[in-house]
Amino acid sequence: MAMALVRSPSSAPEFPGRQLARLERPLRLHRGGVIEQPVVAHETWGRLNAARDNTVLLFTGLSPPAHAASSPADPKPGWWESMIGEGKPIDTRRYFVVCVNSLGSPYGSSSPASIDPRTGRPYGISFPELSVEDIATAGHEALRTLGIERVAAVIGPSLGGMTVLAYCALFPDEVDSVVTISGAARANPFAIALRSLQREMVRSDPAWRGGSYEPGRGPRLGLRLARKLGTITYRSADEWNERFGRRRVPETAGIAGDFRPQFEVEAYLEHQAQRFADLFDANAYLYLSRAMDNFDLADHGGGSLAAAFAKFKVRRALVIGVETDMLFPVDQQREIADHLRAAGRARVEYHAFPSLQGHDAFLVDLARFEPAIGEFLK
Amino acid sequence: MAMALVRSPSSAPEFPGRQLARLERPLRLHRGGVIEQPVVAHETWGRLNAARDNTVLLFTGLSPPAHAASSPADPKPGWWESMIGEGKPIDTRRYFVVCVNSLGSPYGSSSPASIDPRTGRPYGISFPELSVEDIATAGHEALRTLGIERVAAVIGPSLGGMTVLAYCALFPDEVDSVVTISGAARANPFAIALRSLQREMVRSDPAWRGGSYEPGRGPRLGLRLARKLGTITYRSADEWNERFGRRRVPETAGIAGDFRPQFEVEAYLEHQAQRFADLFDANAYLYLSRAMDNFDLADHGGGSLAAAFAKFKVRRALVIGVETDMLFPVDQQREIADHLRAAGRARVEYHAFPSLQGHDAFLVDLARFEPAIGEFLK
Repeated sequence: MAMALVRSPSSAPEFPGRQLARLERPLRLHRGGVIEQPVVAHETWGRLNAARDNTVLLFTGLSPPAHAASSPADPKPGWWESMIGEGKPIDTRRYFVVCVNSLGSPYGSSSPASIDPRTGRPYGISFPELSVEDIATAGHEALRTLGIERVAAVIGPSLGGMTVLAYCALFPDEVDSVVTISGAARANPFAIALRSLQREMVRSDPAWRGGSYEPGRGPRLGLRLARKLGTITYRSADEWNERFGRRRVPETAGIAGDFRPQFEVEAYLEHQAQRFADLFDANAYLYLSRAMDNFDLADHGGGSLAAAFAKFKVRRALVIGVETDMLFPVDQQREIADHLRAAGRARVEYHAFPSLQGHDAFLVDLARFEPAIGEFLK
Repeated sequence: MAMALVRSPSSAPEFPGRQLARLERPLRLHRGGVIEQPVVAHETWGRLNAARDNTVLLFTGLSPPAHAASSPADPKPGWWESMIGEGKPIDTRRYFVVCVNSLGSPYGSSSPASIDPRTGRPYGISFPELSVEDIATAGHEALRTLGIERVAAVIGPSLGGMTVLAYCALFPDEVDSVVTISGAARANPFAIALRSLQREMVRSDPAWRGGSYEPGRGPRLGLRLARKLGTITYRSADEWNERFGRRRVPETAGIAGDFRPQFEVEAYLEHQAQRFADLFDANAYLYLSRAMDNFDLADHGGGSLAAAFAKFKVRRALVIGVETDMLFPVDQQREIADHLRAAGRARVEYHAFPSLQGHDAFLVDLARFEPAIGEFLK
């Protein structure tokens, strides 16, 4: 039986709305390395206007695909379903919305899980070192294939929030407005420590095999554990006090020597972890995770964040943070807003929301996020 | 070659100051189960007075041994060296200090790592289910072997803070004052989630072998990973911003596909993890960790925390929390203080320290902890 050469997890999702931008030239990466025949998956909503100046470019967090909202081609709800559409905060009657699948992510763009055209095999860990700047550049090149040279706004949460900052530093003349949500100008050591441990869980799973696992036979255990830690850090203790308290899963009594889940919160973690391990590629996870650690916008200002932000030419900026976010703490959002203000070019709007849902609030606390983003884009 | 029947990790520490209280009767545990020929390791400082009323009983966190301070028998510094001794906050000119090695801990007390007298082999996971109440009771019974029927104060940080609450509920007539530091009246779902994941890391290590590993050949990888997560949650993001920032380990350049530590914070985690895996027994870790999840002081008040606290008869209480503690958050300390005040019997002193060191502050921010505890015990 011939083995399929596409490295797909056990239940790879299908994205009928997905488009693949096949870039004409090799992609030179920020830290050296080249991707031959690069592909950037994306989805779009709304229409590009005649002036080609109504594009909203959306970058994602670490794990979501480009399917941010439903469309005629793919009616499944997306991860920001209530945010994008006709009459919604990112209004597709006015804007042409492009959501990019991050370079390095396994959902269609060139990544450790995609085929290296030089070998006909998945890249695996022969994929060159990935930077947040490369994700920004890949999005930029995808827009070029669509004939777009300038964006009305670039928006991103989490890793996407880092990516929009890289985008503004790399392409300062091509962005009118920027929206950064629970992002960071650089990773702090607490977040680095958490991601380092997540990567070690993946790498410690014997099924990782130094990165050379067979398609569909990756380190599922390691991914499950890593995602549990992710889920813990994406929410907040206060939310879980309300949501789970100390309620127990009924069927599991306490048995000495039996350490299986007894509390509802443990069952919830398990559910989230299984879902992620079903979908995500382990090497892609490692690359994206490390790219977040290494991101430092100050690299674009000779080591100075202020100098890097001074390069930005955006006219308006919306910076949103969440007080209960432990992964991208609100201090890091204020830092972005303060630097943008100090640079003096942009009109800066800053919100620190008291949402209970921590880093994930932008997916959940839509009563706060929708009006803020809707007003900004009006 | 005969195999040693003592389940000792690779570099088991020696405690020349350690005393072993061998209890006369079997220990009946809180959730059923019995320990035959129970042993409670402990160390002491100072002298019991003629009235036998000057004892300070100290319970520990999850991982430290009873060696809280140096002594003539063991001059190595203990984990609270600056807190215990002549003229120190817990002044041994006045008090007789007893620090108890928790039941279930591998440092000398009966535990999954100790020998089951019925089989001549280590208990492993045949050890009965452990509760925080059992740790309190074991400490109480150890005092009985020393001829002590009442304590001037019972003190504990972290797991020890839970233990002192259990002690006051179980033995209300035998405690004059209580000091709880970064403890909890019951585990919250965020802490349960973290400990559940830590246990899963240990259990997922093939070397755990369902709990039946050979002495010295336990799941070192799982313990290392679990301790890394512990270390992350014992400190605070703000402390690490100051202490590590984004400094890199010099010799590790970024190589694609090489995910070894590059940042100083990663090297620090590795050092802490190695040290713990050298010392601690995996099954003991699982039992103590699960005991913390299951602890709920409300069990002593028919499901009501207020009713449980109403049983306390302490005359004075000192409750200390740390604002940056994510594992035993300061809200949980205020909850203890509020309940003690509402119960109306004790004079309650409450501090929420702004220490940067999170849950570990009681070990580090001694400039705040020493005067607070010293004044209280005067």
